[in-house]
Amino acid sequence: MRQNSAGNNKFLKEFNQAILLDLIRIHKGISKADLAKMTGLSPTAAGVITASLLEKGYIHETGTGESKGGRRPVLLELKPHSFFSIGIDMDVDYMNVLLIDITGEILFEKAMNMPQNDDFEKTVTRIEETVISIMKEFKISHDKLLGIGISIPGIIDSISGKVVLAPNLGWSDVDLPSHFNRLHGVPVKVENEAMASAICEGWVGACQGIDNFVCINIRSGIGAGIYTHGKPYRGVAGSAGEIGHIVVDENGPKCGCGNYGCVETMASTGRIVEQAIKVVRQGSASCLNLLEDIDHITIDQVTEAARNGDEEAGRVLAEAARYLGIAISSLVNTLNPEKVVIGKDFVKYADLVLESIKSIVARRALQYPASRLDIVQSSLGEKASALGAAIIPLKVLFGRS
Amino acid sequence: MRQNSAGNNKFLKEFNQAILLDLIRIHKGISKADLAKMTGLSPTAAGVITASLLEKGYIHETGTGESKGGRRPVLLELKPHSFFSIGIDMDVDYMNVLLIDITGEILFEKAMNMPQNDDFEKTVTRIEETVISIMKEFKISHDKLLGIGISIPGIIDSISGKVVLAPNLGWSDVDLPSHFNRLHGVPVKVENEAMASAICEGWVGACQGIDNFVCINIRSGIGAGIYTHGKPYRGVAGSAGEIGHIVVDENGPKCGCGNYGCVETMASTGRIVEQAIKVVRQGSASCLNLLEDIDHITIDQVTEAARNGDEEAGRVLAEAARYLGIAISSLVNTLNPEKVVIGKDFVKYADLVLESIKSIVARRALQYPASRLDIVQSSLGEKASALGAAIIPLKVLFGRS
Repeated sequence: MRQNSAGNNKFLKEFNQAILLDLIRIHKGISKADLAKMTGLSPTAAGVITASLLEKGYIHETGTGESKGGRRPVLLELKPHSFFSIGIDMDVDYMNVLLIDITGEILFEKAMNMPQNDDFEKTVTRIEETVISIMKEFKISHDKLLGIGISIPGIIDSISGKVVLAPNLGWSDVDLPSHFNRLHGVPVKVENEAMASAICEGWVGACQGIDNFVCINIRSGIGAGIYTHGKPYRGVAGSAGEIGHIVVDENGPKCGCGNYGCVETMASTGRIVEQAIKVVRQGSASCLNLLEDIDHITIDQVTEAARNGDEEAGRVLAEAARYLGIAISSLVNTLNPEKVVIGKDFVKYADLVLESIKSIVARRALQYPASRLDIVQSSLGEKASALGAAIIPLKVLFGRS
Repeated sequence: MRQNSAGNNKFLKEFNQAILLDLIRIHKGISKADLAKMTGLSPTAAGVITASLLEKGYIHETGTGESKGGRRPVLLELKPHSFFSIGIDMDVDYMNVLLIDITGEILFEKAMNMPQNDDFEKTVTRIEETVISIMKEFKISHDKLLGIGISIPGIIDSISGKVVLAPNLGWSDVDLPSHFNRLHGVPVKVENEAMASAICEGWVGACQGIDNFVCINIRSGIGAGIYTHGKPYRGVAGSAGEIGHIVVDENGPKCGCGNYGCVETMASTGRIVEQAIKVVRQGSASCLNLLEDIDHITIDQVTEAARNGDEEAGRVLAEAARYLGIAISSLVNTLNPEKVVIGKDFVKYADLVLESIKSIVARRALQYPASRLDIVQSSLGEKASALGAAIIPLKVLFGRS
């Protein structure tokens, strides 16, 4: 019994510590007395915990507040640059890396193109080397690194944390964190890239304080991170949000999943580029024809052409947007979210299609949920997933995971 | 401060009372000592609360348990027939009424056909009279009636509790409970009928102990009640689960919502009957042709014909099932639920189509979520919504709402 009770006390202590730390984060400059009042802890208990947080270096004293009769109270704040977290968002052809500190400040970010033929071992090594080089550059010791979040395009088993399937990366049934030998036990958490974006939007982006929202990422595939009841919703086994396979046109092309006309085959970046190449091949009157290397047309070239008034490029984007609008309408009827945020490659052409997506959803979804919905592009752009991944260890520290 | 603290104490007391009552419900025959141990309350505090619950009549003592050293402990249990709840499930043409007691035992149930031309006032009167006659018959005083749950096919605003829209009933923007003048303030809660079914399946049906599931009801429309994180999921404004308007065939008939080929237009009971009538009109070789009054073919006649080997009737049901399977596949990819329960009219022909729906979903949904999914018919049949509605006041009492 005594051990048990000691165990409970340890748990309670950590729990209270996380709550106080979270309040200090939210209120930026708060006194011990106010912390005690907010939590119902005794002033002594609040004092013991804040002393421990000061000693560990998570927080520091920052001036004094206004007196409410007695001595002017000392104000507490998260201590910048005291603890750190690294977020990595990766796909087959790139790796976005981000370093933040305990306050969420971004200290470093880097987008790297990756050779497409990296095997699993090479990827593990690349991640390790990236982390180690950042730690060296910013003089971060292992005990100051709260953790590493890794965002990937794939399904993560919500119980075991294993990567069930990441078709683009060619991974299946992989326990990624167990392969890191050079990170000295720093906690590593793998997350689906759309959910990583949702975590980011919920913590620092467009969805702060919103309980029910959906973040849709568009790149080679289309996926969503869903929040319900104010928390990431993963379903029973971690694959919730795989909206890329909502069928939007039974007569569309065959998808890797075996169906025809999944929204992923009709509205992904790959589809847009493919359709642009078709335009060039067909020789339609289009400034896309001026491109030299049609086999390597990029989404940026398509959007630039559309922005310069190329009707064919505009049509290709509009068609993709229409199918995306159909899929979003289904989601809106099913989930009645307060907000839908669309990110990753989408931010490159949101200005060209967002309004038409809104009007498609307004027309196709039921009027009631559609009228209570806000559809926006991610203001965090392409770094949302890397930032979300970096936020994961912070959420653990603040008892918010 | 004193008032505030008194208010908090009252809240805490009610909160602790609900927790103890819920433990007594779950454990059926539990001692005060065990309640104290489970909750962390002191034996004295647990004793005060159970004494109050005994005095109010929610629970009673039922024999004695095994001694663990000292006196044999008195066991506590919910007191049958002490408090009651009434559930009403209504649509334009019927009203299902159900009386349960605090233990969840069904004491009375009645399915009534309703004249389709009842206006709102008549409906209110009919509900009041039904409630009053049940209270009279079972000698239930107002203070013993925990509440009334009313399940309707419509969207309920999750903040105000108002009926936003119930097209079948012809209601919009209605605050139903405020219209009851003869119920002496008994709490009335209005709920969407599919969510009422989900509440029922979660409390006493196929989804007990399951956090993430979807209950789909098929009748004149198609709707779903969704649970996420172990709780009813309503979205930002109460309309989550309106899956009837997932488009499953762009070339299908026009739906009331303005789109074409919504699953509601392809797989509802109305559609099945309509297609059966078409078969008769076309004079296909079908025993459906033997029916005398083809304008009043019922779903029961269609399913009976199919069960007797009528190929045309079977084809009509199979087609509806195929479209339902397509919509469920989208839901499975989006929500990764542990269970999908299909109810209401569906139970009349589940034996004929459930297996084919399962194989459609296995083929069309992503393999990972599909392989972790169980699709079943509601074992509670057509009464799930009425029972779920009756359970709502119980959940409030047990602090589970």
